[in-house]
Amino acid sequence: MAKAVVILSGGLDSATCMGIAHAAGYELCPITFDYGQRHRIELESAKKVAAFYGVKDHRIVSIDFLRQIGGSALTDESIDVPTEGVSREIPVTYVPGRNLLFLAIAASYAEVIGAEAIYIGVNALDYSGYPDCRPEFIEGVEHVLRIGTKAGVEGRPIRIETPLLHWTKGEIVRKGLELGVPYELTTSCYQGGDVACGECDSCRLRLKGFAEAGAKDPIPYRPGFND
Amino acid sequence: MAKAVVILSGGLDSATCMGIAHAAGYELCPITFDYGQRHRIELESAKKVAAFYGVKDHRIVSIDFLRQIGGSALTDESIDVPTEGVSREIPVTYVPGRNLLFLAIAASYAEVIGAEAIYIGVNALDYSGYPDCRPEFIEGVEHVLRIGTKAGVEGRPIRIETPLLHWTKGEIVRKGLELGVPYELTTSCYQGGDVACGECDSCRLRLKGFAEAGAKDPIPYRPGFND
Repeated sequence: MAKAVVILSGGLDSATCMGIAHAAGYELCPITFDYGQRHRIELESAKKVAAFYGVKDHRIVSIDFLRQIGGSALTDESIDVPTEGVSREIPVTYVPGRNLLFLAIAASYAEVIGAEAIYIGVNALDYSGYPDCRPEFIEGVEHVLRIGTKAGVEGRPIRIETPLLHWTKGEIVRKGLELGVPYELTTSCYQGGDVACGECDSCRLRLKGFAEAGAKDPIPYRPGFND
Repeated sequence: MAKAVVILSGGLDSATCMGIAHAAGYELCPITFDYGQRHRIELESAKKVAAFYGVKDHRIVSIDFLRQIGGSALTDESIDVPTEGVSREIPVTYVPGRNLLFLAIAASYAEVIGAEAIYIGVNALDYSGYPDCRPEFIEGVEHVLRIGTKAGVEGRPIRIETPLLHWTKGEIVRKGLELGVPYELTTSCYQGGDVACGECDSCRLRLKGFAEAGAKDPIPYRPGFND
């Protein structure tokens, strides 16, 4: 069975990628990054989602140098996470070079285990202004993997699969529900509590997605945010 | 003073990059990767080279997941390092995706500290068949940084400086000696002993470089290899 590395954060998008890669017939080889993110509850969610899909080898890779390097509200405790709603500018939650780093590690892993593809749940539409979620960025990295890895040079380039790239959050949720993705095991809130805040960028996008899909988000929210 | 991140391994090439970036007037911000390499003596060399240049903040970043991922003779103890001499094929010492990973981390760091450039001592001529040392690879990563980072999107793209890219090892050594690079503090041997083996790919290239430059390598070798 062909293998696919899935970058699994424990959030809604990456869980949907698991469902899509599973439906495509791949053996799922998820990799989760522990980069000292505030919302550490994500790691637990990632483990539960991997277990749901019967994954044999779930790699959790510690890259806490991102915290050491600093520079983002998601990893630096001195920067507040904004709750002002969805913005179009590059937000303070941007982690410098995060997706490039994730893809570089995933590519290294994919080469070692002989995986054909890397699934990553980037989204160009609801991307909140992250430059490393744009289609040109993904194409650029795919090009780099084609020319700069042994697999690529030997004619087995690693594909980067971005099934969610052009979907609205509503389309993502609809597809995931269709495929039976266990959204009840996922978490998205930037605040990282047991109960979603409902106010941060990530919560707002998620709730909008479920509303557009005509479904109710199965995770718990603070009263008044998912009624 | 403008800052440059220098990827500093403790070997001859990256020490030469330190000298070149220093001569270009940059404040040197070296970053060294501890990836469970066998030749750990490199880390000590990197510290000495940084100290030589009076560096204030030398970041040593532990990325030991490369060992966990496996797949290279430089990080996997079950694969022997070859001593057969310089080959043109992709060698077993190739670490999957290493330079992409190094550049991704260096770019993240460069963005956080506001550095203009990243110096990396890749070499296309004596590169022993590593696909991630080719000019097209470097250009591809530079493109990715231009479109996929906040600095790039905001019109301050991070340049990747590869001064050694087209030089022979002899030209590298000649330039380094001219600039007073402290080669006596560096180490190159894949075997990682206190005394260089003189036989591995890396030792052979290094000795060839000094021979071409008409100079004697100041580090100790096993008897008969640097007489």
